[in-house]
Amino acid sequence: MKLTLGEIARELDLELKGDASIEIGGIANLADAGPGELTFLFNSSYKKYLGETRASAVVVRAQDADGCAIAALISEHPRMTWALVARLFDPTPVPEKGTHSMAIVAKSAETGENSSIGPNVVIEANAVLGKNVILGAGCYVGEGSRIGDNTRVFPNVTIYHDVHIGKDGIVHSGVVLGADGFGFEFDPKTASMVKIPQVFGVRIGDNVEIGAGTTVDRGALNHTRLGDNVKLDNQVQVGHGTTIGANTVISGCTAIAGSTRIGSWCLIGGGVGIIDNIEIVDQTEITAMTLVSHSITEKGRYSSGTGLMPSRAWKRSIVGFSKLDELIKRVRGLESRSRE
Amino acid sequence: MKLTLGEIARELDLELKGDASIEIGGIANLADAGPGELTFLFNSSYKKYLGETRASAVVVRAQDADGCAIAALISEHPRMTWALVARLFDPTPVPEKGTHSMAIVAKSAETGENSSIGPNVVIEANAVLGKNVILGAGCYVGEGSRIGDNTRVFPNVTIYHDVHIGKDGIVHSGVVLGADGFGFEFDPKTASMVKIPQVFGVRIGDNVEIGAGTTVDRGALNHTRLGDNVKLDNQVQVGHGTTIGANTVISGCTAIAGSTRIGSWCLIGGGVGIIDNIEIVDQTEITAMTLVSHSITEKGRYSSGTGLMPSRAWKRSIVGFSKLDELIKRVRGLESRSRE
Amino acid sequence: MKLTLGEIARELDLELKGDASIEIGGIANLADAGPGELTFLFNSSYKKYLGETRASAVVVRAQDADGCAIAALISEHPRMTWALVARLFDPTPVPEKGTHSMAIVAKSAETGENSSIGPNVVIEANAVLGKNVILGAGCYVGEGSRIGDNTRVFPNVTIYHDVHIGKDGIVHSGVVLGADGFGFEFDPKTASMVKIPQVFGVRIGDNVEIGAGTTVDRGALNHTRLGDNVKLDNQVQVGHGTTIGANTVISGCTAIAGSTRIGSWCLIGGGVGIIDNIEIVDQTEITAMTLVSHSITEKGRYSSGTGLMPSRAWKRSIVGFSKLDELIKRVRGLESRSRE
Repeated sequence: MKLTLGEIARELDLELKGDASIEIGGIANLADAGPGELTFLFNSSYKKYLGETRASAVVVRAQDADGCAIAALISEHPRMTWALVARLFDPTPVPEKGTHSMAIVAKSAETGENSSIGPNVVIEANAVLGKNVILGAGCYVGEGSRIGDNTRVFPNVTIYHDVHIGKDGIVHSGVVLGADGFGFEFDPKTASMVKIPQVFGVRIGDNVEIGAGTTVDRGALNHTRLGDNVKLDNQVQVGHGTTIGANTVISGCTAIAGSTRIGSWCLIGGGVGIIDNIEIVDQTEITAMTLVSHSITEKGRYSSGTGLMPSRAWKRSIVGFSKLDELIKRVRGLESRSRE
Repeated sequence: MKLTLGEIARELDLELKGDASIEIGGIANLADAGPGELTFLFNSSYKKYLGETRASAVVVRAQDADGCAIAALISEHPRMTWALVARLFDPTPVPEKGTHSMAIVAKSAETGENSSIGPNVVIEANAVLGKNVILGAGCYVGEGSRIGDNTRVFPNVTIYHDVHIGKDGIVHSGVVLGADGFGFEFDPKTASMVKIPQVFGVRIGDNVEIGAGTTVDRGALNHTRLGDNVKLDNQVQVGHGTTIGANTVISGCTAIAGSTRIGSWCLIGGGVGIIDNIEIVDQTEITAMTLVSHSITEKGRYSSGTGLMPSRAWKRSIVGFSKLDELIKRVRGLESRSRE
Repeated sequence: MKLTLGEIARELDLELKGDASIEIGGIANLADAGPGELTFLFNSSYKKYLGETRASAVVVRAQDADGCAIAALISEHPRMTWALVARLFDPTPVPEKGTHSMAIVAKSAETGENSSIGPNVVIEANAVLGKNVILGAGCYVGEGSRIGDNTRVFPNVTIYHDVHIGKDGIVHSGVVLGADGFGFEFDPKTASMVKIPQVFGVRIGDNVEIGAGTTVDRGALNHTRLGDNVKLDNQVQVGHGTTIGANTVISGCTAIAGSTRIGSWCLIGGGVGIIDNIEIVDQTEITAMTLVSHSITEKGRYSSGTGLMPSRAWKRSIVGFSKLDELIKRVRGLESRSRE
């Protein structure tokens, strides 16, 4: 797949400085790009590397283009241009339309037009799939579940019963949607844990992307909900009955317990833990590996944990941490003596 | 599926205040429940919301039932009643008995009566399945593995060889049981890591539930063991040769390294890390995201980490943390001077 | 499977003290080993337990063998001997050669000689598999992906398009290689997140082991790379475009964000978080649950977090932590007053 710089400039409505006939076969970062590739200058501070790149052309801001030795596409938003150019060179295969002969689709299930149902897919009774849906090999769709138009589900995804996924979504491999939430009640009579059946489902909005290995549990007293445009990275865990507001973005390996309400336009880092039954307001930002142990009522940026240290010094600090309360009392004692 | 309030009261042996003929089609939380639904008042402090609910009936403690405007089922343990009522309305589909024509079952494998083996299931030689076992689509059962009576395995679970699962268990999708533990030995002669074969298996007791995406490794010098009634949430990791005592409950995304012995009736929060080769006594509670870096010999509640803070203030605290040792010395200096 | 002690001694070139005709049927740890089993004394401080073991023989260092009541194999490196002996007793089944009748292999895909392609495997167009490759049931291999000679992929692994795995590797169940990296760009015009297509793939070296449930994303502007001999434990997450140097070992549930460069011979603990776009030098060691929030330019051992404490005392410490900055100022105040 090759495009000329002129074609790319026209397609994305960008100014071109240089030879419009140069053929571009792909994109790459500044350091690795070679002949026939288009690269990007996202940050003016890397401008010095422009002289060294072997790329055939670069996407740059106007102010960084002066003296650029190679052909340049001028963009005020090189990262957005990147997203758009990358679409032109995206090699992700699109499977054939139709239902594979090795797929097992219940009679009462509906599949929309132009959908692609891969081999070893199992679709249970009363499931409803929209138009242009792609279900990769080995996916399982439980009873009565629904997948909206244009949503792509990569291979080996498991969707339990009563899980609704909106339109234009992407679900990556290894994802499990609608497994039972984690609910037990201790029975003192029998001294045992009694399972609380998780009778609600999962409701996922439009244009949601869910990363590989992520799990979203079904609800016990209300549906677990992901709003429109939510983006979950890999190996995220969403507990039963939790709600994630529209446009919220959550990085990898973050664990969210049950019945928590996360607002819209939140930015949640990787490895974060969020406890159950709390509320987080819109536009909250949480840094990586923070434990959110109570509700957040004011938007802003929140953190917990400590900074990275050489282990030897860190060991002294954690000893100090364990004596912090005592230390504060000693300082208080010194202060009262110094006031005497 | 509909039941009258009278039927529910009889089934669960509860006192009913109100019209026994009211039809109930499901359950929901106080805020969302509508006509035809039964809701729950778990906490007296939410009693004020009883006036607003649109539910047809509520499960309440006797002391909260006075002046309740809707029909009430009186229970001294509303959460336990919830667990029992939810069973009546649980829509989880039960697949047909029998072995699907697209399942591949080794001749030497045994499947018990009334079991349900879904499509694309693979069962290897000498595996033994009890009565009423349900194996969802796409599950793999390795050589010589065993699954006890009434255990349900949801779709796309992978069970390696020599893994025994007890009776009455639930294994959710994406689970991997019996993959190799993580064991290597550095060989100075070849300057390379040599794999230590993990020759033992996994032994799981009765009535164990394992959440979606959880992994339990096989052992190297002894079996990895989960006791009866253990409950593991989603994306938990259990290392090789580790033992988890009966009735212990572990929340999502907790990682347990190898050869560790966790007692019975422990309550371990989400995102916890537990290092290898330690011992944790019975009835230990660990709060979310704690690192357990040494054995726990006295039962109780344990924690590590720091509290949630606005990031700006937190940055000052982590600088302080890195200087804690120095700070303690300075306080000591002040103290000795103040004593002069 | 049984071997005599004499055969084991010859095979591993070890000195034998005791009866060469003793039959050994397996290995086990000191506490559990019984008659017919071989055990190991890794640590001289456990020498006292040698008197109690019911094992038929033990692997010991020469200095620990005196007065050993059972037969002994003398090894200067008992742990390395363990790795080699365990191979002799490894029961991991090796599936039959050939392509199962229920596998679906694209015409243009190449499979090497002596390979074993299990049931329900799907191999897409132009994929290339080497000799002696084993693909377990339900695996998916995307378009143009490659798997080197002797690599074993356990059941239910998902390999997207353009993922190359080297020779002699092991990939455990539930692994997902080559899912999209997590990349979006906010478009102020439409107030929405635009997906950045992840057009690069994954390149994995030789002799790499990848644990169950681990995810390695494909790259956006360069390939995601794992060097030769890299070992990843279960549920590790590797972000797009990240590079992990040869021989680096990473424990379970560690999350690595995108575009980060990790050196060779690093030892990274479990539950660690590593942010994006940083560099970690060779031979860096990171302790469990550390957050690596900036580049590491000097080799050594690094940590973050706090120590394990009883929760009641810990709560006082976290209050102290939140006031650390103020505390430092108070100490400074005391110091300046004490100097007056």
